[in-house]
Formats: sequence, C-alpha cells, structure tokens
Amino acid sequence: MSCIKTFLIATILLQLCFLGAIPSQATDFGPQHPEIKATQQSALVEKKSFSLPSFTTVGGKTIKNVQVGWESYGTLNKDKSNVILITHFFAGTSHAAGKYSADDELPGYWDTIIGPGKAVDTDKFFVISCDTLVNLNAKDPRVITTGPSSINPDTGQRYGMDFPIVTMCDFVNVQKALLESLGIKKLHTVMGASMGAMQAFEWATSYPEMVERVISVVGAAQANDWLIAWFDISSDLIRQDPEWNKGDYYGHKEPVTGLKSALKMMTLQAGSPLNLDLHRREWTDHNKNPLDNFDNTFKVETTLKKISEKGAEYADANHFLYLAKASQLFSINLDLLKAPVLLLPAETDILLPPVLSEKILDTIKNGVELVTMKGTYGHLGFIFSINQVALSIKSFLNREQ
Amino acid sequence: MSCIKTFLIATILLQLCFLGAIPSQATDFGPQHPEIKATQQSALVEKKSFSLPSFTTVGGKTIKNVQVGWESYGTLNKDKSNVILITHFFAGTSHAAGKYSADDELPGYWDTIIGPGKAVDTDKFFVISCDTLVNLNAKDPRVITTGPSSINPDTGQRYGMDFPIVTMCDFVNVQKALLESLGIKKLHTVMGASMGAMQAFEWATSYPEMVERVISVVGAAQANDWLIAWFDISSDLIRQDPEWNKGDYYGHKEPVTGLKSALKMMTLQAGSPLNLDLHRREWTDHNKNPLDNFDNTFKVETTLKKISEKGAEYADANHFLYLAKASQLFSINLDLLKAPVLLLPAETDILLPPVLSEKILDTIKNGVELVTMKGTYGHLGFIFSINQVALSIKSFLNREQ
Repeated sequence: MSCIKTFLIATILLQLCFLGAIPSQATDFGPQHPEIKATQQSALVEKKSFSLPSFTTVGGKTIKNVQVGWESYGTLNKDKSNVILITHFFAGTSHAAGKYSADDELPGYWDTIIGPGKAVDTDKFFVISCDTLVNLNAKDPRVITTGPSSINPDTGQRYGMDFPIVTMCDFVNVQKALLESLGIKKLHTVMGASMGAMQAFEWATSYPEMVERVISVVGAAQANDWLIAWFDISSDLIRQDPEWNKGDYYGHKEPVTGLKSALKMMTLQAGSPLNLDLHRREWTDHNKNPLDNFDNTFKVETTLKKISEKGAEYADANHFLYLAKASQLFSINLDLLKAPVLLLPAETDILLPPVLSEKILDTIKNGVELVTMKGTYGHLGFIFSINQVALSIKSFLNREQ
Repeated sequence: MSCIKTFLIATILLQLCFLGAIPSQATDFGPQHPEIKATQQSALVEKKSFSLPSFTTVGGKTIKNVQVGWESYGTLNKDKSNVILITHFFAGTSHAAGKYSADDELPGYWDTIIGPGKAVDTDKFFVISCDTLVNLNAKDPRVITTGPSSINPDTGQRYGMDFPIVTMCDFVNVQKALLESLGIKKLHTVMGASMGAMQAFEWATSYPEMVERVISVVGAAQANDWLIAWFDISSDLIRQDPEWNKGDYYGHKEPVTGLKSALKMMTLQAGSPLNLDLHRREWTDHNKNPLDNFDNTFKVETTLKKISEKGAEYADANHFLYLAKASQLFSINLDLLKAPVLLLPAETDILLPPVLSEKILDTIKNGVELVTMKGTYGHLGFIFSINQVALSIKSFLNREQ
C-alpha cells in the first residue's frame, strides 16, 4: 500500500476511533482469508434500550433506573446456545457491526469480522453487544448509558462525581441482567478488545459456569502500573481544567480543553512510534515555518487537534474519569478462569503489550492459544490488523468444547 | 537482581533523572567489563561559566550576554587533539561525571563510563560538557544557562516568550564558541544521549571538518511526527495552566501544575511498558482502597507525583517549551555526515525506538556501527544499560581513523 494511502486511511481511522465506527474499506488492512466467504454488505441493525429499576454496584452502592443500549446481529437459536457477547473498548460503543440506516456512512468497528459468512458468522451465531455503564460517548445520540451525566432520580440533578464508582464487574453484571431478560443462560463466547477483553476476562472469572470461550484482543488480566499511570495522567488533565469544577459543570462551560488533551494522549498511546510518522514533518501551513513562531506548527499537531476535537464532541469528561477508574481497578484471578481462551495481542502495542498476553498463556497453560497480530499499528491493531486473525477466530469459535 | 532491588533503584533513578545525576551504584545495572579497569571513585570537577557578549541565532535573532555553564574531566593535550564533547539530554545538564564536592551524594549521570580508566578514559581524553541554552533546570544553582527566564539586558525584565526560538544548531554554535575560546579546533568525538545525540549529529553535519567521530546513544537523525506529537501534548499541558499567563509568570505564581504533568508524561515515555510495574498494583495507603474513593490511589500514582514534584523544583516551564520546540525542529541531512558513527539504541525504547538508529545505519552504510542495548528500561537504557556497551564505546574511541 502506498504511503499516501496508508496515511489517509490511518488519519481517517484515528478520527473515527472515538466514534466506534470504521470504514468498510478497512479490509484493505489485511487480506480477507479465502476460506472466509463473506458478503461485503453491512446488515441493518437496530439500537435497543435495556432498563433496570435498581442496580447494586460491587462497591455496595445502589443506582436507580439504569439504562444501557444494545444491539444484536443474527438469530437466537431455540436452545439459546449460540450467543456471542461482544464487549467494547474504552472509546467504543455497542456498535460492533452493521449499519443503523442504509445511508450511514460507516458500519460498526468490527464489521469486517462480524456478519453473514464472516469470522464471527451471524448465519450461525446470535451476536449481542451492549453499551457499558459510564460510556465515554454519553452525548452520542446513538449511545444509551448511565453515568455521572445522567439525572439522579433522587435529586432531579445530574450525578456528577456523586455517581458511584463502578468496575468491569459492574459492566458485566448489567450485561448479565440484559441477557437474563432475554432468557440467555450460557455464552458460547465473550469477545472484546482492550477494555472489552478486560470485561471478557471478568465475565469468565465471575461467572465461569456461564462462559464457554473467551477471545481477548489486545487484552490483559489486570491493569499494571504502566496502565494505571497513564490513566492517572490523562485523568489529571481533565481535573486540572478549571471548567471541570469538581465534576459539576453540567449546564455550564464544560472542561473541553482537559478532555481534548486526555483524548490526544490516548490517541498517541493507542498508536505506535512505528506508524505515527504520517505527515513526515510536513508543516501545517507551507508558508509558516515552525522555526519562526510558536504558533507555526507541524501538520501532525493539527491532525491530533482535529482528532481530539472530533472525540470531544460526544465524550463526557466525568465519564472519562469513571472509565479510567474502572480500568485502573481491573484485576482478575487467573486461577478462576476455566474457559478456553484465544489471546490475540498486537506486536507493536505499547499500551497493553504482547508480554501481558504471553503472561496469561504461561499462567493458565491449558486450553489457551495465542496468535500475535503483526504490523505497525500499535494497540489499534485490534481494528487495523484484525483480518490477519479472522481465521483463528473462526476456528476457535467453531471448535467443539 | 531481585524485584525489590530493581524497584528501589529504578524509583531512585527515575527521580534523579531530572537532576542529571545518578547513584554511583548504577554499575549494578550491568557488569563492568573486565577489560575496563576503572576506579570506582568519582573525580572532583569544577563548574565554570562561559560568556558571549552577543550571539546570533539560526533564526537571525540576536541575544546579548549569553552565559552557559561547562565542566571538564581529564587534561587537554598539547596539540588539543584529545577532546571529547559530551552533549546532554532534555532534562540533563553539563554534569556528566565526577562530583562538585566530595560530600555530594551523587556524581554526574555518566560517571560509570567517564573517568580514569573508564570507557571514556579521562587519563587519555579531555572530556568537556556544557549546559545548553534554555536548559530545563534553570533554577538549579549548579546550572548556568540563558533562556526565557534570563533578564533581557535591553529591558531589564525577564524575556519570557520574547526570547528567540533556538535550535540544536544554536546549542552547537554556543558550544563551538566555548571550544574556540579554549583554542580547540577539532573534536575527537561528540557523544550524547537522546537530545544529546541530536546535538552530536547537528555538530557532525554543520561542522563536518571539526568532528572526527559521533556516538549517538538512543538518538535519531530527526524528530519524527511521533516525537513532535509528544512534545505538542506536553507543551499544551504547560500552556493550558492558567498560571502560565503566556509565559509572563516570573515574580508571580508559576505554572507548576502544568509543568508537573508534562514531567510526569516525559517520565512515563522515557520508561517502558515492560519495566513500569514497579509497585505491582500496591495501594498508596493500605487502608484506603482505590475502589472506595477517587482520592484513594495506587502507589505508582504517588511515585509519579513525587518524581514530577522533584523535577519541577528546578525546572522552568518556559524553558521546557523552548527545549520542546528545539527538539521538534531537529532534522539533519544525513548526506552531510562524514564522520564514523557508533549508534547505541535501546531495545525497548518507545520514545526514540531502535528503528530510528537502524534507519541511519541503512542510509549511511559506511563507517557506521550499531550495538543495541538490551533490557527493559526503555529510553532510560541510556543510563541503566550503558555499561553493556562500555567496551564498544572504548573500542570505537580508540580506533584510528
């Protein structure tokens, strides 16, 4: 692929990353395996809402009127044994595949691997995906979530930082309630990338009797100090914005500056030093040499700015803090893991590097497979390089336990 | 080495990184090669000052009364042909080796490789090192530098952001003036780590007739978009602090919050996902579970906070911005490089990864050697892993051209 093409697609994808959607052309990033005969058309999907009148968190707090969005692809079979749950990444939503409307510009983020005849074959499986609690993109009209930006029914005001701290296990418990409302008692597979992989592990260790297989894409069994530290810094950036006002900014000017800095940082961390030379030191304006003035910048600075502005349109700053906290708190006991696991780290990932998946492989030994995605996309390999492992996913899903 | 010991030493070293000093015990990080018979005692060194009544920058601006600090180890020979110039890294100073006073707790940052009988043998070479313009640690009483925190002789006020933009070439030109004042016309070697390697390359391409050898430790031939972007974000953090006040904060409250965030980010970037699991998810206070409250933190968050507070004691926020700008602007033409080069990247460096040194190797082909430092220290391998390549440095220095 030419440099220009790589750069154009990478820039677009980076910008779209925060919207949980990628272009259907993303198959350019890896060959579709000949054994996978998939239609290139995206199916139409409907966003639905699930409500719980009352929910008790792991920390022992009660949240009234919990609402989350969800969507599904394929058909639930008679004995409800064909369910694959997709859990989403930090900046993601339930929109893993398909389009909400035929004229949507873009399908869900894993549309290249989820659909009729694809690796996660919706002719065979009932695939379901759910917005988490405290979803980052709380302002996206297509996201339904409950978090600090929600109205507290007891006060009629937004929760702000009075919202209880929630964990991956709370995300899982809400998903479990949704599945139970559909009469689903077993999950053929839980599969997710990054924070989605954390939820998959949380599922498999909190409810081992319900989970038959786990697929962890760029995942880890715990947030290590490296990840905790990055979330510490990005959260600081929001809290240091005077507009944050201890989380009480609803109806006022919002802490957009801090939020944009946090999103910029996340964008870089999710990339890699190997692929982020997109503009090759090009200037933002050919007539404005960065040597002459602090306002004269390099083009990569402008691109990052645009990406963070795009991300900040729908993101809520307090939701970022709650998601960061949930991510920092994540740590499972691998001894409780009984389900077979497919580990899919990305070679150049510097956020949750392959060594974290290798550690899981070394610890649980039996019933675990690891396939490393190649390429220079860093953590974002979970989107750009996923086609490389489509056949591994397909084989793992179709293997009898 | 035990985990506890690694953790203790790494924590101390990270904290000291901003002071340009490391403990003499740093030889723990790699065996002293048997062929190098060095004394473990640090020599005493004296900090001196060099002045230029007037200096013209690459951008065409004039700075009056430029002052920089410098120090030297070893003796200048009769024909002045034994000079090794050490150029310092972003948060460094001229203090590369020795102690200023016998009761100094710590010697300079490369004391393990610079000294009598060491890899850079001061029994043979005259080693000289100089504070750069706009040195980060402008408030360190042992640093002498000229930058935005200096008094503009024309106004009697601090320059602030009226100080001219300076480049690596300007740093080099000040060093050249210092060398000329000592009658030195040739450099046996220019050697530096990180931003120091940038200066070494700038030397060898701006004044090829003066430079006989280059040693680049964790270096690069240009700031790529990845580095430009990280400096964009860290600079943002300072500019977004309301106390920054467009650089006009002298005599008022300083933008310490933004500065500390920028230093925190640099500390993480200079590390690696492989070694930054120092505290293994330990809590700051054993009685305060991070699950219960946003104020209850993990120990790594407290360590990072302490490191940034230590760094911010001596650092000037505007100087950070000027150094970041100089780093972003750095780009040399490798075709102009005539001197033999020893490239010493660090395996797990994610800031200036080995691929950047490999690119130089591929481009210049002749007269270039590359030895990769192993280990999990990331960019900070230039301190922690330098003993691994001590013999390569010694051989390279002693080879006849």
